[in-house]
Amino acid sequence: MTTTDYIRDGAEIYRNSFAIIRAEADLDGLDPILARTVVRMIHSCGMVDLRADVAASAGFGAAAEGALRAGAPILCDTMMVASGITRKRLPADNEVVCTLNDERVPELARELGTTRSAAAMELWRERLAGSLVVIGNAPTSLFRLLELVEAGAPRPAAVIGVPVGFVGAAESKVALAEHESRLEHLVVHGRRGGSAIACGAVNALASEQE
Amino acid sequence: MTTTDYIRDGAEIYRNSFAIIRAEADLDGLDPILARTVVRMIHSCGMVDLRADVAASAGFGAAAEGALRAGAPILCDTMMVASGITRKRLPADNEVVCTLNDERVPELARELGTTRSAAAMELWRERLAGSLVVIGNAPTSLFRLLELVEAGAPRPAAVIGVPVGFVGAAESKVALAEHESRLEHLVVHGRRGGSAIACGAVNALASEQE
Repeated sequence: MTTTDYIRDGAEIYRNSFAIIRAEADLDGLDPILARTVVRMIHSCGMVDLRADVAASAGFGAAAEGALRAGAPILCDTMMVASGITRKRLPADNEVVCTLNDERVPELARELGTTRSAAAMELWRERLAGSLVVIGNAPTSLFRLLELVEAGAPRPAAVIGVPVGFVGAAESKVALAEHESRLEHLVVHGRRGGSAIACGAVNALASEQE
Repeated sequence: MTTTDYIRDGAEIYRNSFAIIRAEADLDGLDPILARTVVRMIHSCGMVDLRADVAASAGFGAAAEGALRAGAPILCDTMMVASGITRKRLPADNEVVCTLNDERVPELARELGTTRSAAAMELWRERLAGSLVVIGNAPTSLFRLLELVEAGAPRPAAVIGVPVGFVGAAESKVALAEHESRLEHLVVHGRRGGSAIACGAVNALASEQE
């Protein structure tokens, strides 16, 4: 192929991409909200077999979509997640929050004996009630969220828990899925995950438009 | 496992992660710069088999590392890539540039009949010479880069070409790898790629520190 031989129309690229994903991925058994969410998660990583590792609580789709429509803030573990959320898709000009670079975080991490990612969540407390929590990177953040809820912190409306990696990621997602608090949740089991997949999920939940 | 039963020490998490990757991934045949780059790319996506799809020109590692040390700007196709580059790892306080949200881009895209991602690169021209180009998202950006070079634009020192997805991504990476301009390049062949993998590569090239 020559360099000049490619599709330049952004809308057509999207249409073709989603058509390929819907043809190749097995979306049976997913409610419509979750189906379009999984499509965008697959779109963000290029792997149709991601579907096999996706799990969600029965009420997740409705809870997350409803929270966004009601104006819930979106609490993100990293700046990459925050910057990948397409603002114009958000239904209520929702606030997108990442506290990782707050100047108080390094000291908090030392005090609490944990990572900066986990410590940053201390600064979420006043916004947690009814929020959409999105953890795309650090397993420690997801574990910390569960600790906060166990200790009586306000409950988010739903949690997208897709940390990535080799140490604690898989375990943190099992912990969320099986947690006694029964938080509404979406996870990608195993090592895969990451900020792009997290953003794909948020952008799908934010708007029905493909 | 209980929620309280996890590693909280960020440095230990990194050490364990990289040890697992080096034990599981086949890094034979990679020069030291490329080996540490592939380790961080794998770290960013949780998949040791990514190695099989990674390809680079023989001079890529030295060219990219040398450019960064010499103060080259890092030209990124998306804000997610720009926000995932760890500034404190950069050896020369390198400028990190993303022009996608520049107010001139929508009009440029209409004029050129291409995507906003590709149009945004018109605004890179004065910084292209000797730069590190990082394309983590849009195949159209990678194709456009090749067109610019064909048309006589200044040459970047090296190109990280890891767009992700189902329409044009694989083709754009083959086009870069086989291009007559023989740009120094790093690609992930196939559909996989994305901003996290792109950032993993940049962060590895920026510093030898794991």
